[in-house]
Amino acid sequence: MGRETVFDDAPQPPRRRGRPAKANSLADNTRSSIVTAAAEEFSRDGYDATSMRGIARAASVDPALVRHYFSDKADLFSEAIAAPMRPDVMVTHALAGPRDEIGVNIVRYIVETLDNPAAGARIIRLLHTALGQEFAASMLREFMMREVLKRIARELGEKDSEARASFAATQLIGLVVARYGLKIEPLASASPDEVINHIGPIVQWHLMGSPLP
Amino acid sequence: MGRETVFDDAPQPPRRRGRPAKANSLADNTRSSIVTAAAEEFSRDGYDATSMRGIARAASVDPALVRHYFSDKADLFSEAIAAPMRPDVMVTHALAGPRDEIGVNIVRYIVETLDNPAAGARIIRLLHTALGQEFAASMLREFMMREVLKRIARELGEKDSEARASFAATQLIGLVVARYGLKIEPLASASPDEVINHIGPIVQWHLMGSPLP
Repeated sequence: MGRETVFDDAPQPPRRRGRPAKANSLADNTRSSIVTAAAEEFSRDGYDATSMRGIARAASVDPALVRHYFSDKADLFSEAIAAPMRPDVMVTHALAGPRDEIGVNIVRYIVETLDNPAAGARIIRLLHTALGQEFAASMLREFMMREVLKRIARELGEKDSEARASFAATQLIGLVVARYGLKIEPLASASPDEVINHIGPIVQWHLMGSPLP
Repeated sequence: MGRETVFDDAPQPPRRRGRPAKANSLADNTRSSIVTAAAEEFSRDGYDATSMRGIARAASVDPALVRHYFSDKADLFSEAIAAPMRPDVMVTHALAGPRDEIGVNIVRYIVETLDNPAAGARIIRLLHTALGQEFAASMLREFMMREVLKRIARELGEKDSEARASFAATQLIGLVVARYGLKIEPLASASPDEVINHIGPIVQWHLMGSPLP
């Protein structure tokens, strides 16, 4: 308790998802102590080596209670670092649609989420932390690789899918840094549709080699 | 003097370029005081609003002396922030070659420069600073737009060239962040040729819409 965590600059208490506003304070406290324990466990052991069970132990609660509040480790991690978006959810949704729209769907999710100024600023703070601390970078990398890139690779099923996914990540990360961090023009002021129409096919090409328009 | 500058975390004194190792110490001191004054001027006024003449005045030297040591403002800026590469030089070189090799040439320059671990780490420290301070971001943005994107746009001559250049920047920035900052695999361990062959055509497409392989 009270130990410093790597991504401890969250602007506000962890958001609550899908729960009534007047939840009783005992549940609030339990949930909050799970998030605090998770932040400490992740910051000490990294993403891969941390388990839901270990977090439950650190929070002195039953593992079933952790699973009651959080669907999986990615969910808990996203909440612990106050991530403004869930790249693993984005990928799952994008992969569920038509194959030739994966790139556009991923970019749309990113732009529609991060064009909210608070969300855009938050993702940049997370990247700022990751670029300044090797451990934060490794934690974010483990999360990205396990929950995002490997899922895409598994779904695409090609032998070079992991390479393709990591190359696609470069385009997406660069979009985020340039539009929301450095705010390079005219990109930063371009409409969501312009960005989606331009970057979506590039991501599609990275992933599947489909012809560009 | 002694005022804090925005990019003041340079790991070592500014490098010397194209000068004999045994330059006399008076010249060394003059040159060093110009760089110090430049860092302060840029950090106070930003890239666009700073002039070679103003830097000369701040360093109490003749403007001709500033031009003796530094070919232009971009040169002085790059040295003031201890940049490990000159994106404006990269662009000038890339644009001088065959039009259909611009993308590959830009990516080759970036990868060959930043695969040096010290250079890769330095560019990430610069990006880290830029993502953490709005003024540093604006300075880097002004430099990128004036010295890189507008040059590309001018050379391409299409009406949407500035947009194209800013979209190309997303791919290049993302490559740098993912390979040298987050170190996402298998990208981070890919050979220079793999990276150049994959990302080069994407940059080409961003800039000129040429068909991808």
